[in-house]
Amino acid sequence: MTEQKATNVHWHEGEIQREHRHQLLGQQGATLWFTGLSGSGKSTVAVALEEELFKRGKLSYRLDGDNIRLGINKNLGFTAEDRTENIRRIGEVAKLFVDCGVIVLTSFISPYRADRDVVRALHAASGMPFIEVFVDCELAEAEKRDPKGLYKKARAGQIKNFTGIDDPYEAPEAPEIHLHTDRMTLAQEVDMLIHDLTRRGILSA
Amino acid sequence: MTEQKATNVHWHEGEIQREHRHQLLGQQGATLWFTGLSGSGKSTVAVALEEELFKRGKLSYRLDGDNIRLGINKNLGFTAEDRTENIRRIGEVAKLFVDCGVIVLTSFISPYRADRDVVRALHAASGMPFIEVFVDCELAEAEKRDPKGLYKKARAGQIKNFTGIDDPYEAPEAPEIHLHTDRMTLAQEVDMLIHDLTRRGILSA
Repeated sequence: MTEQKATNVHWHEGEIQREHRHQLLGQQGATLWFTGLSGSGKSTVAVALEEELFKRGKLSYRLDGDNIRLGINKNLGFTAEDRTENIRRIGEVAKLFVDCGVIVLTSFISPYRADRDVVRALHAASGMPFIEVFVDCELAEAEKRDPKGLYKKARAGQIKNFTGIDDPYEAPEAPEIHLHTDRMTLAQEVDMLIHDLTRRGILSA
Repeated sequence: MTEQKATNVHWHEGEIQREHRHQLLGQQGATLWFTGLSGSGKSTVAVALEEELFKRGKLSYRLDGDNIRLGINKNLGFTAEDRTENIRRIGEVAKLFVDCGVIVLTSFISPYRADRDVVRALHAASGMPFIEVFVDCELAEAEKRDPKGLYKKARAGQIKNFTGIDDPYEAPEAPEIHLHTDRMTLAQEVDMLIHDLTRRGILSA
């Protein structure tokens, strides 16, 4: 865990609590953490779920590698240390959104188990739902899709330390949800996610 | 501005846009950036405004020095460089909330004009409302209140670089809202803020 530098700080509990916001929104905040190879379909399913939630009058928000890298994590690169700090900050931002009552959909490769476990622990410590969604897809299939042309560049040696090529992807051992995007339809994936959110009481606070 | 380290990244526009979330929530996202001395009343007025907004069915969320320092900015101290990075990250987090449709209330001393202007520019670049609220209070009065006992410690030399004592507070030159907490009631302050949010169309998207 990251060292706490500032001292004499503590949580301020405002008059309006998490529960009030849940009541206002008619939902509970939660983080759905999509993890998987580049090209596995993380963003595709997150976008589709966001649409379905909107149709149901639920507020969700997507945190996305590209968006975050242009903002809060602008000053981070792709070293091992920076990747870990990248995921930690995203986890902390996600927590703030959950506290606000939002259903957060994060789509990051997030290849290291230890980093994902830090985010899980951050949520658990505050009693916030963390749902790890393994967006599972064979490397060969993800590489065939190659929507951003990144595998091609990685194979050509133009990108170094690319997950699945010359950097490992550590698959989740016990994800809350396991999607197989190489043999499920997008509609099936969204159904599975909605079913899970309903079962957990997140959509009917 | 902070250097952009990662290359080949760009904003992803999801199917669900900011405008959809405004419609869902019946409000627009906006950042109300409360700035002022320690003890000037930033958190007090933010908490009171949050309550009033909740009564009106509006979703707001407070970002607060202490809360943020325990999370996203856990690895930052109080050097000049860390203070600047502290404010920059808060500005980026606020932007994400605004994009989500939330009325964000930030209460940080944020003593340096240049730092606040960075956050203002970040919002302007994305067409997001940024409302600087100067929580103005005479130093003598703030020091008399001293709700956290920090002035006492600063005067005793136990805290260094304390704003107003041995570190400057650069007052806003053209804040959107100027509150005088040493001669206004809390109710008057909240009224002034609600009036402003209404005038800007933020409460009736």
